[in-house]
Amino acid sequence: MAEVIPHWLTKQADLSPEAIAMELEDGSTVTFKILKEKSQRFAKQLAQRGVSEGSHVGILSTNQIPMIVAIHALSYLGAVGVLLNTRLTAEELNYQVTDAEVSILITADHLKESCQTLNVNHIQSFSDIEAQPGKEVTLKSELDLGNTFTIIYTSGTTGFPKGVLHTYGNHWWSAIGSALNLGLNKDDKWLIPLPIFHVSGLSTSIKSVIYGMPVYLLEKFDTEAVHQAIINKGITIVSVVTMMVQRLMDRLGDESYPKTLRCMLLGGGPAPKPMLERAKEKKIPVFQSYGMTETASQIVTLGPKDALEKIGSAGKPLFPAQLKIEQTTDELVGEILVKGPMVTNGYFKNEDANSKLFDNGWLATGDVGYLDDEGFLYVVDRRKDLIISGGENIYPSEIESVLSGMEQIREVGVAGKTDNVWGQVPIAYVVKHKEVTVEAIYTYAEKRLAKYKLPKEIHFVEGIPRNASNKLVRSKLIDLY
Amino acid sequence: MAEVIPHWLTKQADLSPEAIAMELEDGSTVTFKILKEKSQRFAKQLAQRGVSEGSHVGILSTNQIPMIVAIHALSYLGAVGVLLNTRLTAEELNYQVTDAEVSILITADHLKESCQTLNVNHIQSFSDIEAQPGKEVTLKSELDLGNTFTIIYTSGTTGFPKGVLHTYGNHWWSAIGSALNLGLNKDDKWLIPLPIFHVSGLSTSIKSVIYGMPVYLLEKFDTEAVHQAIINKGITIVSVVTMMVQRLMDRLGDESYPKTLRCMLLGGGPAPKPMLERAKEKKIPVFQSYGMTETASQIVTLGPKDALEKIGSAGKPLFPAQLKIEQTTDELVGEILVKGPMVTNGYFKNEDANSKLFDNGWLATGDVGYLDDEGFLYVVDRRKDLIISGGENIYPSEIESVLSGMEQIREVGVAGKTDNVWGQVPIAYVVKHKEVTVEAIYTYAEKRLAKYKLPKEIHFVEGIPRNASNKLVRSKLIDLY
Repeated sequence: MAEVIPHWLTKQADLSPEAIAMELEDGSTVTFKILKEKSQRFAKQLAQRGVSEGSHVGILSTNQIPMIVAIHALSYLGAVGVLLNTRLTAEELNYQVTDAEVSILITADHLKESCQTLNVNHIQSFSDIEAQPGKEVTLKSELDLGNTFTIIYTSGTTGFPKGVLHTYGNHWWSAIGSALNLGLNKDDKWLIPLPIFHVSGLSTSIKSVIYGMPVYLLEKFDTEAVHQAIINKGITIVSVVTMMVQRLMDRLGDESYPKTLRCMLLGGGPAPKPMLERAKEKKIPVFQSYGMTETASQIVTLGPKDALEKIGSAGKPLFPAQLKIEQTTDELVGEILVKGPMVTNGYFKNEDANSKLFDNGWLATGDVGYLDDEGFLYVVDRRKDLIISGGENIYPSEIESVLSGMEQIREVGVAGKTDNVWGQVPIAYVVKHKEVTVEAIYTYAEKRLAKYKLPKEIHFVEGIPRNASNKLVRSKLIDLY
Repeated sequence: MAEVIPHWLTKQADLSPEAIAMELEDGSTVTFKILKEKSQRFAKQLAQRGVSEGSHVGILSTNQIPMIVAIHALSYLGAVGVLLNTRLTAEELNYQVTDAEVSILITADHLKESCQTLNVNHIQSFSDIEAQPGKEVTLKSELDLGNTFTIIYTSGTTGFPKGVLHTYGNHWWSAIGSALNLGLNKDDKWLIPLPIFHVSGLSTSIKSVIYGMPVYLLEKFDTEAVHQAIINKGITIVSVVTMMVQRLMDRLGDESYPKTLRCMLLGGGPAPKPMLERAKEKKIPVFQSYGMTETASQIVTLGPKDALEKIGSAGKPLFPAQLKIEQTTDELVGEILVKGPMVTNGYFKNEDANSKLFDNGWLATGDVGYLDDEGFLYVVDRRKDLIISGGENIYPSEIESVLSGMEQIREVGVAGKTDNVWGQVPIAYVVKHKEVTVEAIYTYAEKRLAKYKLPKEIHFVEGIPRNASNKLVRSKLIDLY
């Protein structure tokens, strides 16, 4: 039987009623006591609208306080939150709300209008719910860590998206694993520039409650806002993806960040080495990490003491987690398998996918990587992005990493294209930073890449396709040209 | 099913091989890598002597590295450690080893001779085991948090001692609850002056492995050694009992501790208020706490931000824990009940005691206390030490707290004595610090205590009976005179 703990928000409100739970750009704050009161009130208002234990409630919102309140409210009722990506089309959203058996959809006020075509019987804005009288129901005073709290659909770059089930325990252990890695300082303040409908943003809002730590909440990523917050607001930790680090470094110029910033936690896929080296020069504490929706955020992180020496590595699995490489050939490189109490128990109603993914508690991530002789993980690529060309394995991220080292290049995406001779060949899509020719790029690349890895075509494009969490979607690259 | 995590020592040795796990007074240190290697070797040597999964292995030792190695070795085999108090008589030890079904006893080299009368077939010193060749067995690479790791007998001031079962999970959650309360700083170093055969010392040695934190290990409490370590060795946290705080303050005199000392974690029963006030004046960060063997060490602690305002309180239950007061009358004061994943599942082979102690997951502690209007716990006394005199409840610790405020008094113990008129009356046993008369004590006490609480007798004694963890044993007070 899973462990039972006191309801985490009630508990933190009891331990630190006046401590700041959330801080907004405009300087306004919410204490844990207020957050609890708002969430409990919202829970009773949701109950009035028929939400009860086990209900599946869609949440469609940009980052804002009512969204976090709504999520905590669900935990007071034992209801399950299905977190929906605001960037999806109506068709994509309809797939998810139907698959997840959503009975009621709660949405940010400004999004309600656009929801009317969705296939859900009850659609209510945060304000609609707040206008309810509230029903006197018994709220949960405890959380059973074995119970499901949230469902988040994976990006699903192939096939239909799958709803990842997260128990309270998955979120709890993720928070604890991260704390054992990063430490718990009493002046910590964690900036969320990533959407809360993704697990990285969601997990930080839960860490806030478990640690008694303020989060600095941005409605969406904005280079200037993040820059100013780091400089002026005492941010100690910020979660970012590669694109954000690039833009923040450009904004930073010759300045440097204050010492208060102790961790820039980098997720969202393999990072280009030149970027990491540039960050190292600028003394920005970038910690590479590795994780996915299925692991309730980061499961591998490069700890502070190794961040500089092991540049390019995602680090070692968090304290409660395990990792191994499934080597199918003699190569060191193989599929990454992970295990631990933060790893999902499976996908909602998807026995087929579940049976394929899990082997005796080990989750096959679909990512490819290797361990160095000290056990540090290097993530090479998504297995499905692997390009096999004339029998040679080519990892697109390796080519991207090399080309992005050219100062004239802002971004690169590499994908495999079907080829009659080689099976597949790599094609590069380049976003320029400064003027550059295809010939110059080849001259640069030939010195650094084996011949079979040289892109067979190089195309200049305006932007690289990214999904809602800013991850490069290689499957869409080929459509670009 | 309980969660499974990687073996904690293997994991920490992997994450921080060169970090210091233990530091001794002579300056020698042991890294996590070495600690793991020693423990794995010792496990194989124990296997050679027949220890295997589920074996009950007695450990009788003062604090020393081989003891900690032996404890970790058991976890590599899935064996259960029965931690024995070196201060017990042979008769008392025989009761425990028999009750706990100990099949082999491992002891410090210098104690082996004195063990010969014990009722155990195999008695081996640490050196005996280290001389074994070692058997090639598969060591545990994971820990199932639901499995039993240790058994520690409770002081048992009434009736026979009972063997408290601790799972890996109890120890894990205790460490996590403490970290969420105290924070996790990268320069933390925790001093253990308390015996490892008690849960307070044991739990710190486990925290070391989970946090990746050095412990500074003393073979036994020594005022000068603790004082010097705090002043010169960068100790940030030290676990103490009341007597130790008194002696350390006497030693400190007009000096003050360096700022590196951030927490003096005080356990072992209600603390006299005058002592706490004196510590506050000296700016010593004394954090009162409350816990017992059954809760795998502290379960309630006064957090840093409330330590000065709520002097005398034991604080609030740790994040994963819950607490309530069972009020049997209209009084605010009642028995303290606790619940949480650090609380034992029960006593070994003692269904009778188990059924009495647990009610739906709540453990009846046998202690009496109340919560103030902000939810802070004040522990009044052990319920069994309560003196009922003419129908009035008298808490011995209240009288002790008042009398110990006299500067001429070093220590006080109060117990109830049968009385034909009142049922019971309080009797005080006083250890002098400076010359003082019985009359002077009464003059002092009459101003501060209701008449029915005034001790009916005051006796001067040389010392106060304490058990092996330095807790006052009130049941033995009456024997003093």
